[in-house]
Amino acid sequence: MTRASYYRRVLPSPPAIDFASDEGQKLFREALPAGTMVGFFMLIPHFQTQLDPAYCGLATLAMVLNALAIDPGRTWKGPWRWYDESMLASPKELKKIKDEGISFGDVVHRARRAGAEVEAFQTSQTDVDFFRQSVKKCCSSDNCHLVSSYHRAGLEQAGTGHFSPIGGYHGERDMVLILDVARFKYPPHWVPLTLLWEAMDTVDKTTGQRRGFMLISKPKRDAGLLYTLPATPLLCLRRAPKSRPKPCPEARDAAALPSP
Amino acid sequence: MTRASYYRRVLPSPPAIDFASDEGQKLFREALPAGTMVGFFMLIPHFQTQLDPAYCGLATLAMVLNALAIDPGRTWKGPWRWYDESMLASPKELKKIKDEGISFGDVVHRARRAGAEVEAFQTSQTDVDFFRQSVKKCCSSDNCHLVSSYHRAGLEQAGTGHFSPIGGYHGERDMVLILDVARFKYPPHWVPLTLLWEAMDTVDKTTGQRRGFMLISKPKRDAGLLYTLPATPLLCLRRAPKSRPKPCPEARDAAALPSP
Repeated sequence: MTRASYYRRVLPSPPAIDFASDEGQKLFREALPAGTMVGFFMLIPHFQTQLDPAYCGLATLAMVLNALAIDPGRTWKGPWRWYDESMLASPKELKKIKDEGISFGDVVHRARRAGAEVEAFQTSQTDVDFFRQSVKKCCSSDNCHLVSSYHRAGLEQAGTGHFSPIGGYHGERDMVLILDVARFKYPPHWVPLTLLWEAMDTVDKTTGQRRGFMLISKPKRDAGLLYTLPATPLLCLRRAPKSRPKPCPEARDAAALPSP
Repeated sequence: MTRASYYRRVLPSPPAIDFASDEGQKLFREALPAGTMVGFFMLIPHFQTQLDPAYCGLATLAMVLNALAIDPGRTWKGPWRWYDESMLASPKELKKIKDEGISFGDVVHRARRAGAEVEAFQTSQTDVDFFRQSVKKCCSSDNCHLVSSYHRAGLEQAGTGHFSPIGGYHGERDMVLILDVARFKYPPHWVPLTLLWEAMDTVDKTTGQRRGFMLISKPKRDAGLLYTLPATPLLCLRRAPKSRPKPCPEARDAAALPSP
Protein backbone atom coordinates (compact mmCIF):
# COMPACT_ATOMS: atom_id res chain seq x y z
CA MET A 1 0.00 0.00 0.00
CA THR A 2 1.42 3.42 -0.86
CA ARG A 3 0.95 6.32 1.53
CA ALA A 4 1.87 9.97 1.32
CA SER A 5 4.52 11.23 3.69
CA TYR A 6 4.30 14.54 5.55
CA TYR A 7 6.57 17.42 6.41
CA ARG A 8 4.66 18.68 9.46
CA ARG A 9 0.99 19.65 9.37
CA VAL A 10 -0.44 23.12 9.19
CA LEU A 11 -1.42 24.14 12.74
CA PRO A 12 -5.15 24.98 12.79
CA SER A 13 -5.01 28.59 13.90
CA PRO A 14 -7.36 29.68 15.31
CA PRO A 15 -7.92 28.12 17.73
CA ALA A 16 -4.15 27.59 18.29
CA ILE A 17 -1.42 30.25 18.14
CA ASP A 18 2.06 29.08 17.16
CA PHE A 19 4.52 29.78 20.00
CA ALA A 20 7.12 31.19 17.58
CA SER A 21 4.69 33.44 15.68
CA ASP A 22 4.57 37.17 16.43
CA GLU A 23 1.35 36.69 18.39
CA GLY A 24 2.74 33.63 20.19
CA GLN A 25 5.84 35.56 21.26
CA LYS A 26 3.64 38.46 22.39
CA LEU A 27 1.62 36.10 24.60
CA PHE A 28 4.87 34.77 26.04
CA ARG A 29 6.20 38.26 26.83
CA GLU A 30 2.89 39.25 28.44
CA ALA A 31 2.70 36.09 30.57
CA LEU A 32 6.31 36.39 31.81
CA PRO A 33 5.84 39.20 34.38
CA ALA A 34 2.67 37.53 35.72
CA GLY A 35 4.82 34.69 37.06
CA THR A 36 2.94 31.96 35.18
CA MET A 37 5.94 31.04 33.01
CA VAL A 38 8.16 29.77 35.85
CA GLY A 39 7.55 26.17 34.83
CA PHE A 40 8.52 27.04 31.24
CA PHE A 41 12.13 27.68 32.24
CA MET A 42 12.26 24.26 33.92
CA LEU A 43 10.49 22.31 31.18
CA ILE A 44 11.81 23.85 27.97
CA PRO A 45 15.42 22.68 28.48
CA HIS A 46 13.96 19.15 28.29
CA PHE A 47 11.49 19.57 25.44
CA GLN A 48 11.78 16.50 23.25
CA THR A 49 10.33 14.79 20.20
CA GLN A 50 8.50 11.52 20.83
CA LEU A 51 10.86 8.87 19.45
CA ASP A 52 8.02 6.90 17.91
CA PRO A 53 4.69 8.13 16.62
CA ALA A 54 2.94 6.21 19.45
CA TYR A 55 5.19 7.33 22.32
CA CYS A 56 3.49 10.65 23.21
CA GLY A 57 2.76 9.50 26.78
CA LEU A 58 6.26 8.16 27.40
CA ALA A 59 8.00 11.17 25.80
CA THR A 60 5.89 13.55 27.88
CA LEU A 61 6.77 11.64 31.02
CA ALA A 62 10.51 11.47 30.20
CA MET A 63 10.49 15.23 29.63
CA VAL A 64 8.81 15.93 32.98
CA LEU A 65 11.05 13.52 34.92
CA ASN A 66 14.16 15.16 33.44
CA ALA A 67 12.75 18.62 34.23
CA LEU A 68 12.17 17.54 37.84
CA ALA A 69 15.74 16.17 38.00
CA ILE A 70 14.50 12.72 38.98
CA ASP A 71 17.42 10.32 38.67
CA PRO A 72 16.49 7.01 36.98
CA GLY A 73 19.15 5.28 39.06
CA ARG A 74 20.49 3.32 36.08
CA THR A 75 22.39 4.23 32.96
CA TRP A 76 20.85 5.40 29.72
CA LYS A 77 23.84 5.64 27.35
CA GLY A 78 27.56 5.70 28.10
CA PRO A 79 27.97 6.51 31.79
CA TRP A 80 24.90 8.78 31.87
CA ARG A 81 21.70 8.29 33.81
CA TRP A 82 18.86 10.04 31.98
CA TYR A 83 15.27 9.50 30.86
CA ASP A 84 14.02 8.86 27.39
CA GLU A 85 11.10 6.66 26.37
CA SER A 86 13.21 3.49 26.44
CA MET A 87 13.95 4.03 30.14
CA LEU A 88 10.25 3.92 31.02
CA ALA A 89 9.17 0.53 29.69
CA SER A 90 10.65 -2.89 28.93
CA PRO A 91 11.31 -3.81 25.28
CA LYS A 92 8.18 -5.97 25.34
CA GLU A 93 6.09 -3.15 26.80
CA LEU A 94 7.54 -0.70 24.28
CA LYS A 95 6.40 -2.96 21.45
CA LYS A 96 2.91 -3.13 22.92
CA ILE A 97 2.81 0.67 23.30
CA LYS A 98 4.00 1.06 19.69
CA ASP A 99 1.04 -1.05 18.57
CA GLU A 100 -1.64 0.13 20.99
CA GLY A 101 -0.55 3.43 22.48
CA ILE A 102 -0.69 4.06 26.22
CA SER A 103 -3.54 4.81 28.60
CA PHE A 104 -3.84 7.66 31.10
CA GLY A 105 -3.63 5.20 34.00
CA ASP A 106 -0.50 3.58 32.62
CA VAL A 107 1.30 6.94 32.37
CA VAL A 108 0.32 7.69 35.99
CA HIS A 109 1.61 4.28 37.05
CA ARG A 110 4.97 4.71 35.30
CA ALA A 111 5.42 8.22 36.73
CA ARG A 112 4.89 6.90 40.26
CA ARG A 113 7.17 3.94 39.64
CA ALA A 114 9.89 6.42 38.62
CA GLY A 115 9.58 8.05 42.03
CA ALA A 116 7.45 11.07 41.11
CA GLU A 117 4.50 12.30 43.13
CA VAL A 118 1.38 12.26 40.93
CA GLU A 119 -2.08 13.71 41.43
CA ALA A 120 -4.29 12.48 38.60
CA PHE A 121 -7.75 13.73 37.66
CA GLN A 122 -10.17 12.52 35.05
CA THR A 123 -12.46 15.32 33.89
CA SER A 124 -15.43 13.41 35.36
CA GLN A 125 -13.88 13.83 38.83
CA THR A 126 -13.37 17.59 38.70
CA ASP A 127 -14.26 20.77 36.79
CA VAL A 128 -12.73 23.44 34.58
CA ASP A 129 -12.17 25.84 37.51
CA PHE A 130 -10.05 23.30 39.37
CA PHE A 131 -8.18 22.62 36.13
CA ARG A 132 -7.46 26.35 35.77
CA GLN A 133 -6.24 26.54 39.39
CA SER A 134 -3.98 23.55 38.76
CA VAL A 135 -2.57 25.07 35.56
CA LYS A 136 -1.84 28.34 37.38
CA LYS A 137 -0.25 26.52 40.31
CA CYS A 138 2.04 24.33 38.18
CA CYS A 139 2.98 27.03 35.68
CA SER A 140 4.02 29.27 38.59
CA SER A 141 6.10 26.54 40.22
CA ASP A 142 9.54 25.06 39.57
CA ASN A 143 8.53 21.72 41.09
CA CYS A 144 5.26 20.79 39.42
CA HIS A 145 4.37 20.08 35.82
CA LEU A 146 0.93 19.51 34.39
CA VAL A 147 0.43 16.79 31.79
CA SER A 148 -2.73 16.89 29.71
CA SER A 149 -4.37 13.90 28.03
CA TYR A 150 -6.74 15.15 25.33
CA HIS A 151 -8.35 14.40 22.00
CA ARG A 152 -6.84 16.43 19.18
CA ALA A 153 -10.21 16.92 17.47
CA GLY A 154 -11.16 19.40 20.20
CA LEU A 155 -8.36 21.64 18.95
CA GLU A 156 -9.32 20.97 15.30
CA GLN A 157 -6.05 19.06 14.89
CA ALA A 158 -5.35 15.91 12.89
CA GLY A 159 -5.12 12.76 15.01
CA THR A 160 -6.97 11.42 18.04
CA GLY A 161 -5.80 10.92 21.66
CA HIS A 162 -2.59 12.67 22.68
CA PHE A 163 -0.45 13.54 25.72
CA SER A 164 1.68 16.66 26.17
CA PRO A 165 2.92 18.83 29.04
CA ILE A 166 1.69 22.39 29.63
CA GLY A 167 4.54 24.90 29.47
CA GLY A 168 2.87 28.13 30.53
CA TYR A 169 -0.31 30.07 31.21
CA HIS A 170 -1.54 33.50 30.08
CA GLY A 171 -4.05 34.61 32.72
CA GLU A 172 -5.63 37.56 30.95
CA ARG A 173 -6.30 35.61 27.76
CA ASP A 174 -6.94 32.36 29.71
CA MET A 175 -4.65 30.43 27.35
CA VAL A 176 -2.24 27.55 27.96
CA LEU A 177 0.98 26.76 26.13
CA ILE A 178 1.03 23.14 24.92
CA LEU A 179 4.57 21.80 24.45
CA ASP A 180 3.42 19.26 21.87
CA VAL A 181 5.88 16.34 21.87
CA ALA A 182 4.86 15.39 18.30
CA ARG A 183 7.28 18.07 17.14
CA PHE A 184 7.50 16.56 13.66
CA LYS A 185 3.80 17.43 13.32
CA TYR A 186 2.89 20.61 15.20
CA PRO A 187 4.99 23.36 16.82
CA PRO A 188 4.38 24.32 20.48
CA HIS A 189 1.21 26.40 20.60
CA TRP A 190 -1.12 28.41 22.79
CA VAL A 191 -4.78 27.34 23.01
CA PRO A 192 -7.75 28.62 25.04
CA LEU A 193 -7.81 26.76 28.37
CA THR A 194 -11.53 26.06 28.10
CA LEU A 195 -11.02 24.46 24.69
CA LEU A 196 -8.31 22.19 26.09
CA TRP A 197 -10.67 21.28 28.94
CA GLU A 198 -13.30 20.24 26.41
CA ALA A 199 -10.69 18.26 24.45
CA MET A 200 -9.81 16.42 27.70
CA ASP A 201 -13.47 15.87 28.57
CA THR A 202 -13.76 13.08 26.00
CA VAL A 203 -13.86 9.30 26.31
CA ASP A 204 -10.82 7.16 25.52
CA LYS A 205 -12.47 4.30 23.64
CA THR A 206 -9.75 1.85 24.70
CA THR A 207 -10.46 2.24 28.42
CA GLY A 208 -14.01 3.63 28.34
CA GLN A 209 -12.79 6.35 30.75
CA ARG A 210 -12.68 10.12 30.36
CA ARG A 211 -9.34 11.75 29.71
CA GLY A 212 -7.88 14.31 32.10
CA PHE A 213 -4.70 15.73 33.54
CA MET A 214 -2.04 14.96 36.10
CA LEU A 215 0.22 17.10 38.27
CA ILE A 216 3.68 15.60 38.55
CA SER A 217 6.19 16.76 41.14
CA LYS A 218 9.34 15.57 42.86
CA PRO A 219 8.70 14.36 46.41
CA LYS A 220 10.39 16.74 48.85
CA ARG A 221 11.81 13.87 50.88
CA ASP A 222 13.90 12.90 47.86
CA ALA A 223 15.65 16.25 47.53
CA GLY A 224 19.33 15.65 48.05
CA LEU A 225 18.83 11.97 48.74
CA LEU A 226 19.55 11.03 45.15
CA TYR A 227 22.88 12.77 45.35
CA THR A 228 23.98 10.98 48.49
CA LEU A 229 23.39 7.42 47.33
CA PRO A 230 26.48 5.27 47.74
CA ALA A 231 28.45 4.94 44.51
CA THR A 232 28.27 1.14 44.38
CA PRO A 233 24.75 0.58 43.03
CA LEU A 234 25.38 3.14 40.31
CA LEU A 235 28.52 1.53 38.96
CA CYS A 236 28.17 0.12 35.50
CA LEU A 237 30.26 -2.05 33.25
CA ARG A 238 31.85 -0.27 30.31
CA ARG A 239 34.37 -1.24 27.70
CA ALA A 240 37.80 0.31 28.02
CA PRO A 241 37.88 3.65 26.17
CA LYS A 242 39.30 3.53 22.66
CA SER A 243 42.57 5.26 22.03
CA ARG A 244 41.40 7.32 19.04
CA PRO A 245 40.53 10.94 19.83
CA LYS A 246 36.88 11.91 20.01
CA PRO A 247 35.97 15.51 19.23
CA CYS A 248 32.76 15.10 21.23
CA PRO A 249 33.80 12.76 23.98
CA GLU A 250 30.93 13.01 26.43
CA ALA A 251 31.18 9.23 26.71
CA ARG A 252 34.70 9.39 28.04
CA ASP A 253 34.02 11.60 31.01
CA ALA A 254 33.78 8.72 33.40
CA ALA A 255 37.20 7.49 32.39
CA ALA A 256 38.93 10.79 31.86
CA LEU A 257 37.74 12.87 34.76
CA PRO A 258 37.44 12.68 38.51
CA SER A 259 34.07 11.66 39.91
CA PRO A 260 31.61 14.54 40.18
CA MET B 1 36.29 -2.64 33.96
CA THR B 2 33.89 -0.90 36.33
CA ARG B 3 33.09 2.79 35.86
CA ALA B 4 30.99 5.21 37.84
CA SER B 5 27.83 6.49 36.22
CA TYR B 6 26.67 10.10 36.38
CA TYR B 7 23.45 11.97 36.89
CA ARG B 8 24.44 15.23 35.14
CA ARG B 9 27.51 17.24 36.10
CA VAL B 10 27.62 20.37 38.19
CA LEU B 11 27.79 23.34 35.80
CA PRO B 12 30.95 25.36 36.56
CA SER B 13 29.41 28.70 37.47
CA PRO B 14 31.06 31.12 37.07
CA PRO B 15 31.88 31.34 34.27
CA ALA B 16 28.52 29.87 33.14
CA ILE B 17 25.05 30.88 34.34
CA ASP B 18 22.34 28.21 34.22
CA PHE B 19 19.51 29.35 31.89
CA ALA B 20 16.84 28.27 34.41
CA SER B 21 18.48 29.91 37.45
CA ASP B 22 17.19 33.26 38.74
CA GLU B 23 20.14 35.04 37.15
CA GLY B 24 19.76 33.08 33.90
CA GLN B 25 16.09 34.04 33.67
CA LYS B 26 16.97 37.66 34.42
CA LEU B 27 19.47 37.68 31.54
CA PHE B 28 16.78 36.22 29.29
CA ARG B 29 14.22 38.87 30.29
CA GLU B 30 16.76 41.66 29.77
CA ALA B 31 17.85 40.36 26.34
CA LEU B 32 14.26 39.94 25.07
CA PRO B 33 13.44 43.62 24.38
CA ALA B 34 16.83 44.15 22.71
CA GLY B 35 15.71 41.86 19.87
CA THR B 36 18.63 39.43 20.26
CA MET B 37 16.41 36.52 21.32
CA VAL B 38 14.50 36.21 18.02
CA GLY B 39 16.46 33.09 17.10
CA PHE B 40 15.62 31.58 20.50
CA PHE B 41 11.94 31.30 19.60
CA MET B 42 12.86 29.45 16.40
CA LEU B 43 15.49 27.15 17.92
CA ILE B 44 14.05 26.23 21.31
CA PRO B 45 11.07 24.30 19.90
CA HIS B 46 13.69 21.96 18.40
CA PHE B 47 16.13 21.70 21.29
CA GLN B 48 17.19 18.07 21.54
CA THR B 49 19.47 15.70 23.40
CA GLN B 50 22.27 14.13 21.38
CA LEU B 51 21.17 10.50 20.95
CA ASP B 52 24.66 9.20 21.54
CA PRO B 53 27.46 10.67 23.61
CA ALA B 54 29.47 11.26 20.39
CA TYR B 55 26.68 12.82 18.31
CA CYS B 56 26.99 16.46 19.42
CA GLY B 57 27.70 17.66 15.87
CA LEU B 58 24.86 15.70 14.29
CA ALA B 59 22.34 16.60 17.02
CA THR B 60 23.23 20.28 16.70
CA LEU B 61 22.78 20.09 12.95
CA ALA B 62 19.45 18.20 13.18
CA MET B 63 18.18 20.85 15.60
CA VAL B 64 19.15 23.71 13.28
CA LEU B 65 17.73 22.04 10.16
CA ASN B 66 14.41 21.43 11.94
CA ALA B 67 14.40 25.04 13.19
CA LEU B 68 14.95 26.27 9.62
CA ALA B 69 12.11 24.00 8.41
CA ILE B 70 14.39 22.27 5.93
CA ASP B 71 12.58 19.20 4.65
CA PRO B 72 14.80 16.08 4.49
CA GLY B 73 12.74 14.85 1.54
CA ARG B 74 12.50 11.31 2.93
CA THR B 75 10.72 9.73 5.86
CA TRP B 76 12.07 9.53 9.39
CA LYS B 77 9.45 7.43 11.22
CA GLY B 78 5.91 6.52 10.22
CA PRO B 79 4.85 8.91 7.46
CA TRP B 80 6.87 11.81 8.88
CA ARG B 81 9.83 13.58 7.31
CA TRP B 82 12.03 15.01 10.05
CA TYR B 83 15.66 15.31 11.10
CA ASP B 84 17.41 13.46 13.85
CA GLU B 85 21.01 12.26 13.89
CA SER B 86 20.18 9.07 11.99
CA MET B 87 18.93 11.14 9.03
CA LEU B 88 22.30 12.83 8.61
CA ALA B 89 24.64 9.88 8.11
CA SER B 90 24.57 6.30 6.84
CA PRO B 91 24.67 3.46 9.41
CA LYS B 92 28.34 2.93 8.56
CA GLU B 93 29.12 6.63 8.99
CA LEU B 94 27.17 6.72 12.25
CA LYS B 95 29.31 3.92 13.61
CA LYS B 96 32.46 5.79 12.64
CA ILE B 97 31.16 8.98 14.27
CA LYS B 98 30.30 7.00 17.42
CA ASP B 99 33.91 5.83 17.59
CA GLU B 100 35.73 8.95 16.43
CA GLY B 101 33.38 11.91 16.75
CA ILE B 102 32.90 14.38 13.90
CA SER B 103 35.03 17.21 12.55
CA PHE B 104 34.03 20.82 11.93
CA GLY B 105 34.41 20.32 8.17
CA ASP B 106 32.23 17.24 8.19
CA VAL B 107 29.39 19.08 9.94
CA VAL B 108 29.65 21.89 7.35
CA HIS B 109 29.56 19.31 4.56
CA ARG B 110 26.48 17.55 5.93
CA ALA B 111 24.66 20.85 6.47
CA ARG B 112 25.25 21.83 2.84
CA ARG B 113 24.26 18.39 1.60
CA ALA B 114 20.96 18.83 3.47
CA GLY B 115 20.30 21.97 1.44
CA ALA B 116 21.30 24.60 3.99
CA GLU B 117 23.39 27.66 3.22
CA VAL B 118 26.52 27.61 5.39
CA GLU B 119 29.17 30.23 6.08
CA ALA B 120 31.95 28.61 8.09
CA PHE B 121 34.82 30.33 9.89
CA GLN B 122 37.77 28.90 11.74
CA THR B 123 39.01 31.31 14.40
CA SER B 124 42.30 31.64 12.47
CA GLN B 125 40.35 33.20 9.57
CA THR B 126 38.54 35.88 11.56
CA ASP B 127 38.42 37.69 14.92
CA VAL B 128 36.28 38.09 18.02
CA ASP B 129 34.60 41.26 16.70
CA PHE B 130 33.35 39.49 13.59
CA PHE B 131 32.19 36.62 15.80
CA ARG B 132 30.23 39.09 17.96
CA GLN B 133 28.65 40.66 14.85
CA SER B 134 27.69 37.19 13.62
CA VAL B 135 26.17 36.23 16.97
CA LYS B 136 24.13 39.46 17.03
CA LYS B 137 23.01 38.97 13.43
CA CYS B 138 21.90 35.36 13.88
CA CYS B 139 20.31 35.83 17.30
CA SER B 140 18.24 38.71 15.87
CA SER B 141 17.12 36.67 12.86
CA ASP B 142 14.53 33.96 12.30
CA ASN B 143 16.49 32.50 9.39
CA CYS B 144 20.04 32.09 10.66
CA HIS B 145 21.48 29.99 13.46
CA LEU B 146 25.03 30.05 14.73
CA VAL B 147 26.73 26.77 15.60
CA SER B 148 29.84 26.90 17.75
CA SER B 149 32.61 24.30 17.81
CA TYR B 150 34.64 24.72 21.00
CA HIS B 151 36.76 23.00 23.61
CA ARG B 152 34.92 22.58 26.90
CA ALA B 153 38.05 23.29 28.96
CA GLY B 154 37.76 26.98 28.01
CA LEU B 155 34.49 27.07 29.94
CA GLU B 156 35.99 25.02 32.80
CA GLN B 157 33.68 22.15 31.83
CA ALA B 158 34.37 18.41 31.83
CA GLY B 159 35.07 16.96 28.38
CA THR B 160 36.95 18.14 25.30
CA GLY B 161 35.66 19.20 21.85
CA HIS B 162 31.96 19.95 21.55
CA PHE B 163 29.34 21.42 19.19
CA SER B 164 26.20 23.32 20.18
CA PRO B 165 23.98 26.05 18.74
CA ILE B 166 23.79 29.56 20.19
CA GLY B 167 20.26 30.41 21.33
CA GLY B 168 20.55 34.07 22.26
CA TYR B 169 22.73 37.09 23.01
CA HIS B 170 22.76 39.61 25.87
CA GLY B 171 24.43 42.74 24.46
CA GLU B 172 25.02 44.68 27.65
CA ARG B 173 26.67 41.76 29.42
CA ASP B 174 28.22 40.46 26.16
CA MET B 175 27.03 36.92 26.92
CA VAL B 176 25.76 34.13 24.68
CA LEU B 177 23.24 31.41 25.49
CA ILE B 178 24.62 27.95 24.66
CA LEU B 179 21.87 25.40 23.99
CA ASP B 180 24.10 22.50 25.00
CA VAL B 181 22.87 19.35 23.25
CA ALA B 182 24.52 17.14 25.91
CA ARG B 183 21.44 17.77 28.02
CA PHE B 184 22.15 14.71 30.18
CA LYS B 185 25.30 16.54 31.30
CA TYR B 186 24.80 20.31 31.43
CA PRO B 187 21.70 22.54 31.25
CA PRO B 188 21.55 25.38 28.69
CA HIS B 189 23.74 28.21 29.99
CA TRP B 190 24.95 31.74 29.41
CA VAL B 191 28.71 32.33 29.05
CA PRO B 192 30.80 35.43 28.28
CA LEU B 193 31.17 35.73 24.50
CA THR B 194 34.91 36.37 24.75
CA LEU B 195 35.35 33.18 26.78
CA LEU B 196 33.51 31.16 24.14
CA TRP B 197 35.72 32.76 21.49
CA GLU B 198 38.81 31.59 23.38
CA ALA B 199 37.30 28.10 23.76
CA MET B 200 36.80 28.04 19.96
CA ASP B 201 40.29 29.36 19.31
CA THR B 202 41.83 25.97 20.08
CA VAL B 203 43.24 23.22 17.89
CA ASP B 204 41.27 20.06 17.16
CA LYS B 205 44.01 17.45 17.46
CA THR B 206 42.25 15.11 15.02
CA THR B 207 42.39 17.58 12.12
CA GLY B 208 45.19 19.90 13.28
CA GLN B 209 42.84 22.82 12.49
CA ARG B 210 41.43 25.51 14.75
CA ARG B 211 37.82 25.26 15.79
CA GLY B 212 35.30 27.96 14.92
CA PHE B 213 31.69 28.67 14.10
CA MET B 214 29.23 28.45 11.25
CA LEU B 215 26.15 30.43 10.27
CA ILE B 216 23.45 28.17 8.90
CA SER B 217 20.43 29.49 7.03
CA LYS B 218 17.76 28.34 4.63
CA PRO B 219 18.42 29.44 1.06
CA LYS B 220 15.76 31.96 0.03
CA ARG B 221 15.26 30.27 -3.33
CA ASP B 222 13.96 27.20 -1.51
CA ALA B 223 11.20 29.02 0.34
CA GLY B 224 7.92 27.52 -0.77
CA LEU B 225 9.60 25.19 -3.21
CA LEU B 226 9.66 22.35 -0.72
CA TYR B 227 5.93 22.63 -0.31
CA THR B 228 5.18 22.46 -4.00
CA LEU B 229 7.10 19.30 -4.82
CA PRO B 230 4.93 16.75 -6.58
CA ALA B 231 3.57 14.12 -4.21
CA THR B 232 5.10 11.16 -6.04
CA PRO B 233 8.72 11.26 -4.82
CA LEU B 234 7.50 11.62 -1.27
CA LEU B 235 5.29 8.56 -1.30
CA CYS B 236 6.46 5.80 0.96
CA LEU B 237 5.48 2.21 1.55
CA ARG B 238 3.67 1.53 4.79
CA ARG B 239 1.95 -1.48 6.24
CA ALA B 240 -1.83 -1.33 6.46
CA PRO B 241 -2.87 0.25 9.76
CA LYS B 242 -3.74 -2.17 12.53
CA SER B 243 -7.32 -2.32 13.66
CA ARG B 244 -6.61 -1.86 17.38
CA PRO B 245 -7.19 1.66 18.70
CA LYS B 246 -4.16 3.83 19.38
CA PRO B 247 -4.51 6.57 21.99
CA CYS B 248 -1.60 8.43 20.40
CA PRO B 249 -2.00 7.66 16.74
CA GLU B 250 0.32 10.14 15.08
CA ALA B 251 1.42 7.25 12.88
CA ARG B 252 -2.04 6.77 11.46
CA ASP B 253 -2.51 10.27 10.13
CA ALA B 254 -1.52 9.33 6.63
CA ALA B 255 -4.15 6.62 6.53
CA ALA B 256 -6.89 8.28 8.51
CA LEU B 257 -6.85 11.83 7.24
CA PRO B 258 -6.89 13.72 3.99
CA SER B 259 -3.55 14.85 2.63
CA PRO B 260 -2.33 18.13 4.11
